[in-house]
This record gives sequence, C-alpha cells and structure tokens, in this order.
Amino acid sequence: MQGHNVKIFSGSSNPKLAQAICKELGQPLGKIKLSRFKSGEVYCLYEETIRNCDVFLVQTFSHPINEHLVELLVMIDAAKRASARTINLIVPYYGYSRQERKSAPREPISAKMLADVLTTVGASRIMTLDLHAPAIQGFFNIPVDHLTALDLISDYIQSLNVENPVVVSPDAGRATTAENLANILNAPFAIMIKKRPEHNQSVITHVIGEVEGRTPIIIEDLIDTGTTIVNVVESLKERGAKDALICATHPVFSGPALQRLDHPSIREVVITDSIAIPEEASNRFRVLSVAKLFADAIRIIEEGGSLSTLFKYGGV
Amino acid sequence: MQGHNVKIFSGSSNPKLAQAICKELGQPLGKIKLSRFKSGEVYCLYEETIRNCDVFLVQTFSHPINEHLVELLVMIDAAKRASARTINLIVPYYGYSRQERKSAPREPISAKMLADVLTTVGASRIMTLDLHAPAIQGFFNIPVDHLTALDLISDYIQSLNVENPVVVSPDAGRATTAENLANILNAPFAIMIKKRPEHNQSVITHVIGEVEGRTPIIIEDLIDTGTTIVNVVESLKERGAKDALICATHPVFSGPALQRLDHPSIREVVITDSIAIPEEASNRFRVLSVAKLFADAIRIIEEGGSLSTLFKYGGV
Amino acid sequence: MQGHNVKIFSGSSNPKLAQAICKELGQPLGKIKLSRFKSGEVYCLYEETIRNCDVFLVQTFSHPINEHLVELLVMIDAAKRASARTINLIVPYYGYSRQERKSAPREPISAKMLADVLTTVGASRIMTLDLHAPAIQGFFNIPVDHLTALDLISDYIQSLNVENPVVVSPDAGRATTAENLANILNAPFAIMIKKRPEHNQSVITHVIGEVEGRTPIIIEDLIDTGTTIVNVVESLKERGAKDALICATHPVFSGPALQRLDHPSIREVVITDSIAIPEEASNRFRVLSVAKLFADAIRIIEEGGSLSTLFKYGGV
Amino acid sequence: MQGHNVKIFSGSSNPKLAQAICKELGQPLGKIKLSRFKSGEVYCLYEETIRNCDVFLVQTFSHPINEHLVELLVMIDAAKRASARTINLIVPYYGYSRQERKSAPREPISAKMLADVLTTVGASRIMTLDLHAPAIQGFFNIPVDHLTALDLISDYIQSLNVENPVVVSPDAGRATTAENLANILNAPFAIMIKKRPEHNQSVITHVIGEVEGRTPIIIEDLIDTGTTIVNVVESLKERGAKDALICATHPVFSGPALQRLDHPSIREVVITDSIAIPEEASNRFRVLSVAKLFADAIRIIEEGGSLSTLFKYGGV
Amino acid sequence: MQGHNVKIFSGSSNPKLAQAICKELGQPLGKIKLSRFKSGEVYCLYEETIRNCDVFLVQTFSHPINEHLVELLVMIDAAKRASARTINLIVPYYGYSRQERKSAPREPISAKMLADVLTTVGASRIMTLDLHAPAIQGFFNIPVDHLTALDLISDYIQSLNVENPVVVSPDAGRATTAENLANILNAPFAIMIKKRPEHNQSVITHVIGEVEGRTPIIIEDLIDTGTTIVNVVESLKERGAKDALICATHPVFSGPALQRLDHPSIREVVITDSIAIPEEASNRFRVLSVAKLFADAIRIIEEGGSLSTLFKYGGV
Amino acid sequence: MQGHNVKIFSGSSNPKLAQAICKELGQPLGKIKLSRFKSGEVYCLYEETIRNCDVFLVQTFSHPINEHLVELLVMIDAAKRASARTINLIVPYYGYSRQERKSAPREPISAKMLADVLTTVGASRIMTLDLHAPAIQGFFNIPVDHLTALDLISDYIQSLNVENPVVVSPDAGRATTAENLANILNAPFAIMIKKRPEHNQSVITHVIGEVEGRTPIIIEDLIDTGTTIVNVVESLKERGAKDALICATHPVFSGPALQRLDHPSIREVVITDSIAIPEEASNRFRVLSVAKLFADAIRIIEEGGSLSTLFKYGGV
Repeated sequence: MQGHNVKIFSGSSNPKLAQAICKELGQPLGKIKLSRFKSGEVYCLYEETIRNCDVFLVQTFSHPINEHLVELLVMIDAAKRASARTINLIVPYYGYSRQERKSAPREPISAKMLADVLTTVGASRIMTLDLHAPAIQGFFNIPVDHLTALDLISDYIQSLNVENPVVVSPDAGRATTAENLANILNAPFAIMIKKRPEHNQSVITHVIGEVEGRTPIIIEDLIDTGTTIVNVVESLKERGAKDALICATHPVFSGPALQRLDHPSIREVVITDSIAIPEEASNRFRVLSVAKLFADAIRIIEEGGSLSTLFKYGGV
Repeated sequence: MQGHNVKIFSGSSNPKLAQAICKELGQPLGKIKLSRFKSGEVYCLYEETIRNCDVFLVQTFSHPINEHLVELLVMIDAAKRASARTINLIVPYYGYSRQERKSAPREPISAKMLADVLTTVGASRIMTLDLHAPAIQGFFNIPVDHLTALDLISDYIQSLNVENPVVVSPDAGRATTAENLANILNAPFAIMIKKRPEHNQSVITHVIGEVEGRTPIIIEDLIDTGTTIVNVVESLKERGAKDALICATHPVFSGPALQRLDHPSIREVVITDSIAIPEEASNRFRVLSVAKLFADAIRIIEEGGSLSTLFKYGGV
Repeated sequence: MQGHNVKIFSGSSNPKLAQAICKELGQPLGKIKLSRFKSGEVYCLYEETIRNCDVFLVQTFSHPINEHLVELLVMIDAAKRASARTINLIVPYYGYSRQERKSAPREPISAKMLADVLTTVGASRIMTLDLHAPAIQGFFNIPVDHLTALDLISDYIQSLNVENPVVVSPDAGRATTAENLANILNAPFAIMIKKRPEHNQSVITHVIGEVEGRTPIIIEDLIDTGTTIVNVVESLKERGAKDALICATHPVFSGPALQRLDHPSIREVVITDSIAIPEEASNRFRVLSVAKLFADAIRIIEEGGSLSTLFKYGGV
Repeated sequence: MQGHNVKIFSGSSNPKLAQAICKELGQPLGKIKLSRFKSGEVYCLYEETIRNCDVFLVQTFSHPINEHLVELLVMIDAAKRASARTINLIVPYYGYSRQERKSAPREPISAKMLADVLTTVGASRIMTLDLHAPAIQGFFNIPVDHLTALDLISDYIQSLNVENPVVVSPDAGRATTAENLANILNAPFAIMIKKRPEHNQSVITHVIGEVEGRTPIIIEDLIDTGTTIVNVVESLKERGAKDALICATHPVFSGPALQRLDHPSIREVVITDSIAIPEEASNRFRVLSVAKLFADAIRIIEEGGSLSTLFKYGGV
Repeated sequence: MQGHNVKIFSGSSNPKLAQAICKELGQPLGKIKLSRFKSGEVYCLYEETIRNCDVFLVQTFSHPINEHLVELLVMIDAAKRASARTINLIVPYYGYSRQERKSAPREPISAKMLADVLTTVGASRIMTLDLHAPAIQGFFNIPVDHLTALDLISDYIQSLNVENPVVVSPDAGRATTAENLANILNAPFAIMIKKRPEHNQSVITHVIGEVEGRTPIIIEDLIDTGTTIVNVVESLKERGAKDALICATHPVFSGPALQRLDHPSIREVVITDSIAIPEEASNRFRVLSVAKLFADAIRIIEEGGSLSTLFKYGGV
Repeated sequence: MQGHNVKIFSGSSNPKLAQAICKELGQPLGKIKLSRFKSGEVYCLYEETIRNCDVFLVQTFSHPINEHLVELLVMIDAAKRASARTINLIVPYYGYSRQERKSAPREPISAKMLADVLTTVGASRIMTLDLHAPAIQGFFNIPVDHLTALDLISDYIQSLNVENPVVVSPDAGRATTAENLANILNAPFAIMIKKRPEHNQSVITHVIGEVEGRTPIIIEDLIDTGTTIVNVVESLKERGAKDALICATHPVFSGPALQRLDHPSIREVVITDSIAIPEEASNRFRVLSVAKLFADAIRIIEEGGSLSTLFKYGGV
C-alpha cells in the first residue's frame, strides 16, 4: 500500500483481528500503551508519532462493553490531541445497536448516544459490519462504511450444498435479512411468530412457511445469550425440521451462550471474528475472518475507489 | 388549557387538521401570513406576537413535499428570531422517512438530513406519528414525541368484527407492525415474500402463512402510489383470500393512487387525516382523525404528565 | 488542470452552465442520478466514486426554487456520506437573497437560514455571483468566493460605444452598484426616488440627476417580474430619455417577465447565464456566459492563487 | 415592572445610559466589580447573585472599542458560569459594523466574527440600535431586537419647522435611510456622488438633486472622524445650500471630530446618547436619549408584547 | 422545598448518598429502573414522568468507574429524550480528574473528554466536590457548582484540638490546599519533596518544614491506593513526627488501600461519603457526610440565592 | 523546509520574534497589512494569497493585551475566509492564564473563554509556551503544542556553575515547577509560605527549606509587576540568603516592573523573548530566544515527527 502515513492501532477488545488486518495490509500494528490505573481509569499513550497520520483504531464492542467503549473514547481523545490527520474507527461489532429506538417512554436511544459521543470526541469516520438496524448509519454525520459479511456467509453456505434448505428468520423484525439470504440461495423462507409478554422476553407461538423435512438455515446479525436460537431450533425440530445451520455475523456470546449452542439439533454454527471468542471455543465453530474485508476497505479509503467493489450483496 | 402562552400555527399543508387540533384545545389558530413571492420564495409573517410563547407549528410533509419542507424551515426561522420560547413541530407525516439508510453506496440519508436541518434552524421538539422506521427517533437530539394511530386503527377494526381475519404484512420489512396488530386482534399472520430485481421495484413471489378463505387485514404505515397494495391484494386473491381491508396511517396518495385503490378486491381503506386528501375522495375512505391525539399530546407537554397514558399499544 | 481528483456534478437547475464550466476545464461532467419519487421526494445517487475528491456541485436557485434547494441539500448529504474530501457549492444565483434582513417584526431572515442549512448538511465552500446584498458573505463561516459579472457587463457596454449615456439606479438601495458602473464608464449617474405605500410595492415619485436626451443604462443585480424595470423605463421616457439598455446579472424572470421586457423603450437586455432561460427567449437577449469565470475560479481553488486576478472591478 | 428577576449591569463604556435605563424601569443598577489587572487583563465579579435571573448587560462599542469588547466577553462568561437564566446584551452602538462584508480579497468580516464570538461565549439575545447594515441582524442566530432612533430624530426635526429643507444622503450606500427620512418629512432628496481612488478614501464629484437655497438635513447612522460630514457640508455650501442640520444616531467621534463639527456651515448636530460623549461637548449638540427606548424594550421582552408598538417608522 | 418539579434519581454508584440528599430535602428519591442486559449493555427507564422537571442525577465516579460513567450517559440521554427541563449532574467525585493535562506527548486529557461527553449527551449543569484540579471547572461551558468539604474537614479537626500540629502536603502539586488548611488551623506547614523516576511512580527524598515532635495533618483531595499516604506517614515517622491524621475528601480506595490505611502510625482517617465504602470499613473511618451540602445546593439552585453562603472557605 | 505552502504572519505584538522564527526556517515573513481605523477598529489584509496554505500567526498576549487579542481574532477570521488550509496560532505567552478557574463565585474563567473564542473564529491548532496552568491545554479541543523553555533555562543556569544553590518556589502553587528544576540541577529546594488577606494580595509569612548562605534560584512562569519577586528576594535576604538569580519564561513586566527588578539583591534576571521588551531594558537581562524552538516545532508539524524530540525535560 502506498499510504505510508496510515497507522493502525488496536484497543484491547480484539487484538487478533487487528493483527490480521495489518498482516493483510503488509504493515506492522502501531505501538500503543493501554492500561488501567488502580482506580480503573483507562490510560493510553501512543508510543510512536501519529502526527498527520490517518489513524485507524480497531475496537469491537464486546464484553466488557463499557470498558471497551470508554477505552476507545480515550484513544480517540489522545489521537486528536496528538495531531492525527484523520481518526478512523474500525468497530466490527457496534454494540448498543438494539437500543436504536425507544420501545417504551423514558428509555434512552443508546446507539445514538454512542454515535454522538464518538463524533464529539473526534472520530472522523467509522467502519462497521452488519449493523443490527441499518438506520444507525444515519445516527452519524461522519462517513460510515457499512460492510457486510453476507457474501462470506452465503459463499460458505453455498459450498456446503445443503439439501432441501429453508432460510428461517427467527423473528419478524429480522425478516428482511432472511429474505435476502433466501433470494441468494434460491431457497424457501420461513418466519417465527412470537408474542412479547414482557420487555426483553418473547415466546414463539407458531411458524409461517414450510419447514418440515427441511434443513433450517437460521440467519441472525448476532448471537447474544443463545436463548433465541435454541428456542427457534427446538421449535423447528418440533415441526419436523432437520438439524439447523446457524449463521450470525457477531458472536456476542453472553452468559451461558457457549453451552447453549452445544445443542443436539444444531448442525453447525457459522460466525465471524468480528468479536474474539475463547480459543477452545473457536474450534467448535466455523469462524469466517473479516480481516481481509476491513483491510481491503482501508486500502480503498486511502487509495480511492469504491467499497461497492468488495461486495456482491449489500455493503454501503 | 391553562397554558395561555401556547400558540398554534398552521403551514399550508394541512390547515384542516391544525383547525381540528385547536378546536380540541378550545383555542383559536394563530394568525400567520404565508405566501410566495413571484420568484417562488416563501414569505412568512406572524401576525401576532409570539414572544416568550410555546409555539406549535403544524406541517405535514405531503405533496408538494419540498415546498412544505422549506415553508416549515422559514416558519421556524421567523419564530426563532421573534423570540418564541420553544418551537414545537407537529409533523404528522414525516416525509423522506424511506430514505432512512443507504441501500446503495453514494446515496443520501435524507431523513437524517431533514432532522439536522430542522434542528439547526431552531426546532426544540418534534411530534410525529407512526414513523416509517422507528430509528428515525434517534436522528434527533431534541425530544421526539412519537405518537401512533395503532389504537385508533385497531379499535376501529375490532368494531367491524371481521370474520376469519388474517393480518398480512405486505413485505418482510414491515413484519413487526403486522405481528403487533395480529397480537392485538388475536388473529393469524401472513407475510408476502418478494424479489427486488431493481431499485425501487419488487415482485411478490409467494406468501407464507394461511390466507385462503380469510379476510386479509393489510397494515401499512403509508400508502404511496398504491402499487404495492394492489399487488398484495391481487396476490392474496389468487391465493383464495376474500376482499381485503387496508389500513394505513398516512395517505400519501401519489400519482394514480386514488384510482388504484378503487379496486374490486378492496373492501375498505382505513386511513387518518395526518395528510389532507381531496374532499371528494375522503368519502370513499374511512378517515380516522388524529386531531384529538395531537391535542392531548400538546396538553400533556404543557401541563406535564406522560404521553404513555394516551396509548394502549405503543407510542413513545 | 492537474487536479485529477476534482469532480463536477450538476443539479437539475442549470445543466447547460455546468456543461460549459466542464468544457472550459476540459473535463467531463460527473455522473449523477437525480430523480423524484412519486411522492415528490428527491432521489440522488452518485454514479461514480467521489471518495477523497473535491466535489463541485452546480445548482442555481431558479424556479422552482424550493425544489432546487432541497435537491442541493440531498446532493450535499450524499456527497458527505460518500467520503468526498471537500464539497464546494457553485450557486451562481443565490436565491432568497432579498430576505437578508427583517423589514418587519416576526419575519424570517431566509438568506441566513439557507446559509446555516447548507453548512450544516456539509458544504465546505460556496462560490456565488453578484449577491443582492454583499453582507450575505458574512452569513457563512465557510469560505465564500464572491465573483462578479461587472467586468463582463461593463466590457460589453463599453464595446457598444453608447452616446450620451447615463447610468441609472432603479432605487436608492442599489445606488452603490450604479455609482460603480458610472465610474467605470465615466458616465453621469441618476437615481429613481420611490415611495413604498405597502410591503413589496413601490411607486416612483421622481428622478434625481439628468436624464433628458440621454441613453439610460439601468443596472440591477437581478430581474424578477420585470415590473420595476418597466416602471423605471417608462418613467425615464416621460422625462425625455432615449430607449434604455438594461443590465442584470441574474435573469430570474418570474411570471410575465419575458413579455414585459419586450417593451418598445428597451433597446437591449444584457444578462448572464447564471440562470437558464428558455431557448427561444435567449435569442432576444444578450447572454454573457459566466462559465469561464467559474472555471477559472475552480482552477485557482485547486491550484492555489488569488481570485482577485480574475477581476478588474470587485470580486472577493 | 413585575419582572423581579431582571438585573441590569453596566460595562464601563456608557454607565450613564445604563443608569438612565434603570431609572426608567424604576430599579437599581446591578452591582458588578469591573477592573483591570496590572497586566491589562479584565477582571469581573458580579457582586450580587444572578442565579436564574434575566441579566441585561449594557455595553456600547465606543473608544477604546477592543477594551470594551473583551470586557463584555468576560462579563458574559462570568454570567454564564454564575447560572444566569438568560444573558441579554444591550449594545446601543454595534462597532465593527462597517466591516460587514469583504471589499477586497483576504479581508475579515469582523462584524460577523463579533457576532459569533458573543454567541459562543453565551449571549442569548442582543438589543441594538440603527445598525450600519441591517443584514447584520442575520449574522446572529439568537434573537436580535433592532431598535431605531429614526422616530426620535424625525420628531425632533419636525419640531424645528425647517424652511425649504432637502434631505441629503452623504453617499450612495446610505441613500435608503435618507429616502426614508425624506418621505417622513415630505421633503425633497439629494445624494452626493463620489469616487473612491483608494481604500477608506473618497472624493465628492457632484451632487444629484436640487440643493440651492435649501437647508440640507444630512442623515447618517454614525459620525466617525467627521471628515465625510465636513466634505458634504462644504460641497453643499459651494452649490448654494444654506447651513446644514446634521443627524446621526451614533456619535463615534474619533480623532478631531469634535473640532471638525464646530464648522460655520453646520447649524446644529443631532445625536443620541448611544455613545457617551465628553460632558463639555454635550452642550454643543442636541443629544436625544435612547434610554426610554431600551427600557421599554426590556419591559416588553420580560412581560411579552411586541416591540413594533415602540415605533412609527422601522424597528424590528 | 417549593420546587415541586424537582426530581432526584440515583445511578448505581452511591444510592445511599442520593437517599440522604433526598431525606435532607424531604422528598422521595425518583423511581428509575437501571439494569444490565446480558451483553453488559446498560438499560435505563425512568419509572415516573420527568417532563418539564428539573432532574438531578446522582452518580459518583467510583469503581467500576467506566460502568458508572456509561450508566450516567445513558441516564442523561433518556432524560433528554423524555423532555426533562434541565438535567443536573451531581457527581461528588469527578473521576479521571488526574488526567487533566498531558504529562507526556500523545496522552489523552481524559477529564476534558469526559466533560465534552457529558455536555454533548445533554447535561445542563454539574455539581461536584473538591476537584483534583480546579481548572477542570473550565473544561465545562455549562455551569459548574464546585462545592468543597474543606469546612466540614477543618471544623472536625478543630474539634479535635490536636496539640502541636503541622499540616503536611504530600507533594509539591498539592501544596496550595495544605497551605489553605494551615492558614485555617493557624498551624505550621511542611511539604514532602519527591523524585519521579518513572511515570506514575515517585520517591520521597526529603521533607521541608519542621515535623519533629508534631502531629502531622495530611490533607489530600483523594486517597487512591494508599501508597502515597503510607510513604508519607512512614517518612514523617522516620523524621520524628507523631502518629498522623489523614484527611481526604474522596475515598477512592483502590486495590489494597483499606489494608494499607490500617497502619500503626495513622491515628485517624477522615473522609466523606462522596464515594460509598464497604459497610464494615466505614466504622474504621471518620466519615463526614456531604449530603446536606448537596441538598442545600439543590435548594439554592431551585429557589435562587448564592452558593457562597454555604462555605466559610472556598466553594464556587 | 519542503513545506512550500507554509506562510508565517506576525501580529503587532512581537514582530521581532516572528522574524527570528522565519530566519530559522529560512523563509520570509508573510506580508500582511495591519492597522487601526480612527475608531480604533482593527483592519487586516493579507497582502499575498494564502489559499490552501498552512498559515502560522505569531501573536503574544502582551500589553495591550485586549488589543492583541482582538487583532488576532480579526487575523484568524480573514485567514479563514481567504481559504487557508489550516490556521495555526503561535502564542508564546497565553495571557489571561491566571484566570483559569473561579476563585470566588460569579467570576469568569477567562482563559477558557479565550480558548473558545479562538477556536470558534477558526484556529485549527495552537502552539504555546510554559502555560501558567498546564490544564489550560484541556480548554482546547484543537491540538495544543505545549513547548517549554525549561531546557533553555536549566542549560543556561548549569553553565553558570552557581555555588551552593537552592531552588526557591515563590509560592505553594508553583512548587511543582521548582521541584522539577531542583531535580534537574540536583539542588535543594525551598518554598515561600504566604497568607492571602485579600484577593490579588499576599504576604510572605515564612520560608520552609534551608536558604541561609545559599544562592536562591527563583523560578516563575512569568514576571508581572515584579512585586512578588521583590518580596521573595527581600524575604530571602532577611533569612541570610545571597543575591538571587531570577528565572521566568514570560517577561510580562507591568507597571514599574523594570524599576523593581533593578534591585541590589538580584544578581541576574533570565527571561525569554516570548514577549518583546524595550530595547534599552533588554541589555539588563539575559534574554534566551525561543525562536529556534518554535521554528523546530513548525518544521515537525509540517514534516511529521514528534515534538518530544525537542525537549529533555517536559513539553507535550
């Protein structure tokens, strides 16, 4: 890459991905000291000059999310004061994305609050992947490069030659993504119908679409506690479906998610490395790397060109 | 209402609704001169003092939308310079709401642009109704009072005692609203599945869910050209459904929408007065008025209290 | 031009001027899709990458002005989100410029509102021509390149060798421009005195300065409805003046302006192409092109240098 | 006045006017300590609580203007940090108002810079008088109450019953104000025509309009060095006019202005107390007080109502 | 308190203090739901209306500081969107206050970043206590009510009638506070001199001032790990001082601070409840409550008046 | 220097330093016209193009400080409107720096007000020297390059080989700087203890640390009226110290400072040229030039690299 003034630094959430991106670009990861004072306060020091550089900060909003968020804010502030030319955030998983609107009065819209905070402190661009709600793009007034893992996932699934598949949307709100995948795979489509007796809770009442005797391909943007997935899988099983293939871009994996996904009716779980998962766990999953995707995007940003060349399906 | 310093003014898009709101509140509509110079430039003059007043400006983003938008901007600017205490927008139909994210590279997010522009010029609050995408709330950093006509619509439908109903989502992206209505009506649910061969175009390929012999209740936030509705209705008819009931909050009614909705398989069209429709047309539709809803909201804003008391279902 | 990352796009108001500017610069006009949804909403898509480019958007605020304004806002928003390096507006005629101050209480200052809105959405520079009020420059905090057609106009008039000329200011408010032209032409100067019985109305009561037997050269920044011009011309005729020469930078031409200017006491009308006029009409007028002026200005902006080299008289 | 939480403080430029305003309102001037450190830095301390108060700061931009400007900034900052509810500036003479546009490339627009600076530091409103250029109103996005002394001045002149008057505009740029006064007085109108061989310099070349045997009433917004006035007066005298009456809102009086105005062809000089002038000098002039005007405006701002009731002619 | 529209809510950092403040004011603590999603994301819901209310949010920046910070941001965002009239932060201990300047290149100024972030999200005022660096007040452009516990602490110490005291500043940077306390107590003053071989490390090299045979009163704004205190105490002991009295406003108490303070040469530790400490620990310390201080401040803010009445020494 | 688009302009406060910086860089000082209108208003005109240039404006905040401040604001505004690429301030002495916090209620924080004002008008970076309070760095959100003269000063002092030195802090608030210098010189340390009976006044009550028979090296960031220095010197003399060496970065020199420093117990005064002093006076002092420091900093800013390479001790 000609862009000799590009420097990439990693927060503490996913250094492995940051390394992989740098490797794709053929350049070393930038040196930064990140630590915590005994009081829990973040300390940050760039250990090389970033004056006039295009700085890329890799931080994903995984557990512990608030630590990672504040760490990123501190990194941005230090970069701004050290005269970086531009400060570009690579946030593979944009957390708080399910708080993108009020579902009851007197709630926050935390996903917007985050956008305001990142911009105020000094971000000049954000690159992210498969936002839970695409309208979050509009929460920013800085450029948002919205990448997608849909190509990676659909290519992988096509390579499996699944017989008799049915793409399943785990709920009504995610139907569009499932519809897209069904169109790509040229497969039928089903959707799980729920009641929400209480906030943050839901019960599947029925399925619309044919699932009997078919292999369900369940597509999600993220897997959090795994509860939804397991409910969907069991509900499908009851309706005569075969073992399911689970696809999700972001392995948030809260609480006992790892145990839950170790389920007899799950054939395979396909995720990306947008969030780092424990080494021992990563063997149990098909982990598709998004490092090349981000590396290509950085290259295009620096050298000009269009991100749309990176995708067959989606990505803006 | 005690709030003697509340003044309500109407833009030129829906003066009838503004009048109806004032009638509900028992106060006269404020006097404002709105005209166009020969050059097409908007002219605006408040014909009574608004110094220290809580000003409410009623303007819906109906045809011709850009005229109505700029007129509202000019009204806000004049109110700001005339020392209004607060400037509250009542925008029953928030236009450009389908441009709430990029669906291709190098597109605008016009719904966000609008939010920025309204806020910059001086709006201190916006009240709106059934946003096409709820995340648009987050496009604002001023308070958004997001009202819903869902109660009005579902009450009306329940009063019809439709036999054998099925709630139909006209596409995957609107599935959540339909699911909500199905839950309220305790009715089954179906969804139309489409392909999008090109931008702004789509073809229904199949329906998931049972529709044969049932009366479809199609729920939409808005009816634009009517093409989608007619396609859905015909597609349902082919699949053995009865004549459909169409419900939509916003009668945008572009192009030949009025003719299209005069369709043999449509039993009734239920809309609100969020957008003014031609007098002769309004007899053909069931028009539910949202005037009381906005009047109640204004009263709560001025006297304190919670908007959530206005709704059984939704509204934030 | 070396500036290989300069791209010029045209809004729908004056594509001919945009083409002419590009021709002067020897580069093709950028590809952009601009359309309207059936609902009247603007749609915009840049059909080539503009990442890291200096984008110039050509849009004049002619009829229908509010459409052109909103279209420009949408174009700016899309350019900002597509990572343009700078967004430079070429607005030959800055509309709403006569609303540059309050002339009655509770009026807007729309020319300022426009400036705020353009800047908020993302403009980084504006180039414009012969502002109605020069203080409008100060409405912006981004650089304003204020060009003038005074050189073009005065050169043309000098080429006519008008005998016995008198430069006439059509009202007291425009006296400075007329005084400037009189100084350039080394001609005497007269001014029309008016009463304004009502807003947006005026009656000429007398003329100060000698006009009898002279050829009036009437200078205006814009011709709107033509009423003022015709009144001035007739008033001068009554006082014994010869047929008049009319000069104005911006042919706004509202309502029956074209018919009005077809007046026996008008010898010639000199305008620029800052606003597109109907093909058939353009033969009746002397249309001086400002394309080279804007092209030179773009070149200077990109390559460095001073705009003042472009002008003998004025331009900042 | 009921507004018991209104507090008025005076900067060091015109305490007499501040006192007079307070007297009109029947309330004491607020206690504030204003001093200079030995280093020349301004020190400011409000000696009474202003928490939740509507604070009015009286400061005119007279000599030494930069001292008065910075003093006002410091006063605003202290008021903001002391939790004033609103900070209202009373700036009878808005200095730098002749720098309201660029007249050459690479000049500032200082009048706008001032507006930005006052707003940034915390002003919530500005009241001012007879701005040199009315478009300066648009430099602010906070409410501007633009008062005028035109009523005071024209009433006084009418009381003089001047025989055979002619209203004279000292240059083309001020023609509108003179035209207004001529209309009010029902008098004829003349205008001085100049050449400007260099920046900040000008030579009167001729007069248009009848002046012989008439008493000139010269109207200006401000008298600075007095050079222009003396040139105009002498030029009129040469053309057979009688001794002149000079009217100007703002007695800036720079350099030897006082001596210059002691001219045999000047009959009387009418000014206001928008700027304090030396005691001994004030006897030589007719000083009309604007204290009641500002007091009435404050009362209207606090109690509601419309400023337009204060004026027969102008004021917005 | 008359202020019937004041509502006080507590974050999860110090609910006991929030309760105590409410008790002082004789009003109940506001109802709010604060929780964490399984993903670690903060959830917040005000369980009573706050429309038009003056909301006070009590949150101290104690362990885990980043959690408490993000929680507060979410609380502010929700309050803003729920139409609170003002959002007032009560942050007894303002964390990150030791990052108030860069001490090496390419460091952040986190205390400023925090201020920007709190303001951007919507805070309209902040009340805080004994800032580590008083200049942090200037990091905000919203009003900062800077309270001090110096009165509480000095009153308590005076009540002890310590014989032969010496006030000791633990380092050069804190000398001013110690000098102040020495002046209040009319006691001599000493200061510890250090070397800083590395970042965040220091070694006491000597003491200036007389300490032999005296009881040291060591004053700090905060106690973090306790290392500094223990070093100072031991160093004083070696120089013949008696057992020390430790005073500090903020018991940050990181790591093994509690054990360290259980030191034979420490006579007593005086702290405040600005930060909650474990129940069992609180018996070992003299905990002075700042609840009344904050309650009085709230009352003054709502009813007008001056905070300076609350303090004998300092507080602005 | 390769940076061919760097242009350096001088305000009227310290042209000699600006010249010296340019000489170090081997480039001519930029041409600018700076004058005052008779009314005292600043006029500014860049006499060469600065389009796309990195402009550096040299202005120190010396007497008359408010003139210099407003002049700088006008210079920034003109540079912004003339399309400078970046506007970098070189403010060797940042005035108002002792107003960096409120020391009594209802005071301003003028140092922050200044920072806001400079940034609003258009500064993109500030370079300054030995800030009175380092937290002032945090008053800015643009990059601050904080240089220090500590190396220059300590190198010079080491060259003197002072026998038996003691570094003296003139008050508790400056103890850190003195401690640093003592560490560099490997010398003992003393501190003057004061009472402040009134605002802006203080009385030395005693000294802690050994001074008898030693040569005091008094270190200050600035010398203002000289009163403090003289008090300290005399107080040290009474306690048996030898003649003192005075070191201060900024020679503010207000009032009779020059006479006061002509004191029998002062051996030498070491200052920098951050502020211009009268030619005749400069012979009496050891003036160390900071021109090379700023020149090196400019070079690093333009060519990349780290400012930390410029310093052995401090500078961020």
